[in-house]
Amino acid sequence: MIRVTIWNEYVHEVVNPAVAEVYPQGIHNAIAAGIRNESFSIRTATLAEPEHGLTEEVLNETDVLLWWGHRAHDEVRDDIVDRVQQRVLDGMGLIVLHSGHCSKIFNKLMGTKTCQLKWREADEKERLWVIDPSHPIAEGIGEFIELPKEEMYGEHFNIPVPDELIFISWFEGGDVLRSGVTYSRGRGKIFYFRPGHETYPTYYNNDILKVISNGVKWAAPSQTAAPFYGNTAPLEPIKAK
Amino acid sequence: MIRVTIWNEYVHEVVNPAVAEVYPQGIHNAIAAGIRNESFSIRTATLAEPEHGLTEEVLNETDVLLWWGHRAHDEVRDDIVDRVQQRVLDGMGLIVLHSGHCSKIFNKLMGTKTCQLKWREADEKERLWVIDPSHPIAEGIGEFIELPKEEMYGEHFNIPVPDELIFISWFEGGDVLRSGVTYSRGRGKIFYFRPGHETYPTYYNNDILKVISNGVKWAAPSQTAAPFYGNTAPLEPIKAK
Amino acid sequence: MIRVTIWNEYVHEVVNPAVAEVYPQGIHNAIAAGIRNESFSIRTATLAEPEHGLTEEVLNETDVLLWWGHRAHDEVRDDIVDRVQQRVLDGMGLIVLHSGHCSKIFNKLMGTKTCQLKWREADEKERLWVIDPSHPIAEGIGEFIELPKEEMYGEHFNIPVPDELIFISWFEGGDVLRSGVTYSRGRGKIFYFRPGHETYPTYYNNDILKVISNGVKWAAPSQTAAPFYGNTAPLEPIKAK
Amino acid sequence: MIRVTIWNEYVHEVVNPAVAEVYPQGIHNAIAAGIRNESFSIRTATLAEPEHGLTEEVLNETDVLLWWGHRAHDEVRDDIVDRVQQRVLDGMGLIVLHSGHCSKIFNKLMGTKTCQLKWREADEKERLWVIDPSHPIAEGIGEFIELPKEEMYGEHFNIPVPDELIFISWFEGGDVLRSGVTYSRGRGKIFYFRPGHETYPTYYNNDILKVISNGVKWAAPSQTAAPFYGNTAPLEPIKAK
Repeated sequence: MIRVTIWNEYVHEVVNPAVAEVYPQGIHNAIAAGIRNESFSIRTATLAEPEHGLTEEVLNETDVLLWWGHRAHDEVRDDIVDRVQQRVLDGMGLIVLHSGHCSKIFNKLMGTKTCQLKWREADEKERLWVIDPSHPIAEGIGEFIELPKEEMYGEHFNIPVPDELIFISWFEGGDVLRSGVTYSRGRGKIFYFRPGHETYPTYYNNDILKVISNGVKWAAPSQTAAPFYGNTAPLEPIKAK
Repeated sequence: MIRVTIWNEYVHEVVNPAVAEVYPQGIHNAIAAGIRNESFSIRTATLAEPEHGLTEEVLNETDVLLWWGHRAHDEVRDDIVDRVQQRVLDGMGLIVLHSGHCSKIFNKLMGTKTCQLKWREADEKERLWVIDPSHPIAEGIGEFIELPKEEMYGEHFNIPVPDELIFISWFEGGDVLRSGVTYSRGRGKIFYFRPGHETYPTYYNNDILKVISNGVKWAAPSQTAAPFYGNTAPLEPIKAK
Repeated sequence: MIRVTIWNEYVHEVVNPAVAEVYPQGIHNAIAAGIRNESFSIRTATLAEPEHGLTEEVLNETDVLLWWGHRAHDEVRDDIVDRVQQRVLDGMGLIVLHSGHCSKIFNKLMGTKTCQLKWREADEKERLWVIDPSHPIAEGIGEFIELPKEEMYGEHFNIPVPDELIFISWFEGGDVLRSGVTYSRGRGKIFYFRPGHETYPTYYNNDILKVISNGVKWAAPSQTAAPFYGNTAPLEPIKAK
Repeated sequence: MIRVTIWNEYVHEVVNPAVAEVYPQGIHNAIAAGIRNESFSIRTATLAEPEHGLTEEVLNETDVLLWWGHRAHDEVRDDIVDRVQQRVLDGMGLIVLHSGHCSKIFNKLMGTKTCQLKWREADEKERLWVIDPSHPIAEGIGEFIELPKEEMYGEHFNIPVPDELIFISWFEGGDVLRSGVTYSRGRGKIFYFRPGHETYPTYYNNDILKVISNGVKWAAPSQTAAPFYGNTAPLEPIKAK
């Protein structure tokens, strides 16, 4: 059983009727419904909850955390961001969705300040090509995923060189993006997946849900040993010189 | 159920009594016994069998192939090597063990001709440090694996830059080696794992067996789409210019 | 002074008047003229010459070899391919252009058999986006290179995971490609660069020439030590056990 | 001409006579003297100077910044760290030496909080093996660098997967470390190089100085275009849907 926590700032859906129409229960609940299966135990958390719903207890019981944020990145408390970062370093998986590329937690883990990119809202077509057909995150989908309308995110995307590049997006307006990338930080695995603008029904698309679900399985912690850090005695004798 | 085929040239154990004493049933059977569990269906194959035991049928029914060879690399038929390569490109996992670094199949998949390195038989200590504690191949072992006596393989190891670096070996005689590395080729995953000289009981070591077993799970095919290659019609209209 | 050899099979230009019109002196001479500068010493070589113009002597005096081939991949002698591979392992840079993705030498160095991809000749627009703006190969060009008409090469491109990804191409017809990628093999550096179909004047485009020229500088051999491979004495004492 | 600024916290040398004996003019001046050549224009900066000697003006005139810090990481002003980070993203090279692995600037760029590792002061031998003999940073040295006495830094080293792995250290006491690694962040190149504990004469070793000098050349900015980030118009027409 993989314990999943889906975090959503849950602001657009509340203040913007057009978004509420697409996601009446919020993006978090749409994703939760979409990836539900017997091997996941899912809960949600939102910005407005105490400690944003990400208490020590919740995080300690989370194997994989999903993160959707956009308008309210700055309202996320720094101490909660530190807490999430530490949990990632200790092995919790993290899936950062769409505009989460500008979240405090993603930026902190990447080191490129704001993970900037080009963007445009123009109802344009996006086609996500599978670049690594050996990867479990690409399981069960075809050679590409087509989204009739999405926000555009384009290169240059100011992220570190990914450990793995799984999807590249083609956009109708002439741009491309590395749109599915993975990283490790400490013992934790990170998957950034681009699609999911709040005004489009992207999180009802079966392929998108399949990728997120694959991502959860991939990002679940491996039962590896926690390294010891600090002053350490030699394992072998050292000759006097 | 992961269908595993363990291939061993099975020559040393036949012609060299000292090796036969360590591996009376052959290295392939020692590994088979050591990684046996309810989620693996294991068979073995050896050089002397017709088509080296790697018929089209066997390979088509193999999810992950393990490869141990040393003295008889040159006796492996080129058409069988091609067949294995094609299966890897089509998704079969491949785990190359120890002196398999000089096998035809590994060299063909790597492109560096003979994957050369330094070596020495001096009964020296090897310590394999876990470099990527986020990786499932490192599951269930400590910060390092210690082998009291092994053959030494040292850098420079003439392999392509690995996709992932999981272990680095420290050797008593002063050398180091990237000793657990992964690659993908097409839809297939490849794991090279260094230890396992025929004169040492390395394949009875529980940590080594655990790593091989983890490797099998990691290398099992993902159910991804087979890409189409060749001439293809446009997905979008192309303007006349 | 970097000693550059531009190899071209030089068949299309001879047998196809439409190609001859674009490249009357052959693709090799167009590139030679286009990248000429005081720090390069350039020669050319073609398939029809003895030993394809790639004698031991020529290769030994070559720092960076450029390779353009298409129709006649199969006519390249295997022993010459081996010779080139060995030189790459020994440090010679290699720049593989366009349809060279199917050349014997590239396939041999990559290990994925035929480095397949999707393709289409439809006079469509290609836009190569710079993905790594820290890389010297992207020096002196803008955020992208636009080619009004080119052949399309699309993903999945069956190459190993590149060491570095410098360009991604957007194609009008809906495809993308990792179109500028680097590898190392042994002491040699390899740069694959996609554009350059024989029926288009791509090798007169200043940005394309600039990238090729940057590639030559990047791929020139570093004066590093040749590793010793083989049996080696310990550098440190080994305790009897 | 590459404009180099060598930053040293310059505290050990002032407060600890044993260190002052090894580096009477400070580590920064030892390195400056050691890498001096006609293609570098070198200045130094230290913690005690106004703005730590890293004013906007100095940084804007710096192509490659070297960083040595240890005891006083916490005394480095956060706004100066931000300034350095921004310059790296804009293209300035950064070479982080030895205990700089715990500096604010390195941690901020890496995203792994404190880049922890194992350590030990035991006058032990370190041998740095060249892992990538194609890389210009390895130019002019042999297969390894041997340091008779150094501080030990051992795995697990909590850094992101490096873009390039150039050196692995063997330590007498039984540990290994990825001791020469590179990253890019934005348009800037970063090289971390392990050796250089303040109590040893490491920065007088010719091989070490050669590697640092190679690193400076490698990390110097490429004259690439600064990407535009933000809202952007389409380059191609978008069909109404």
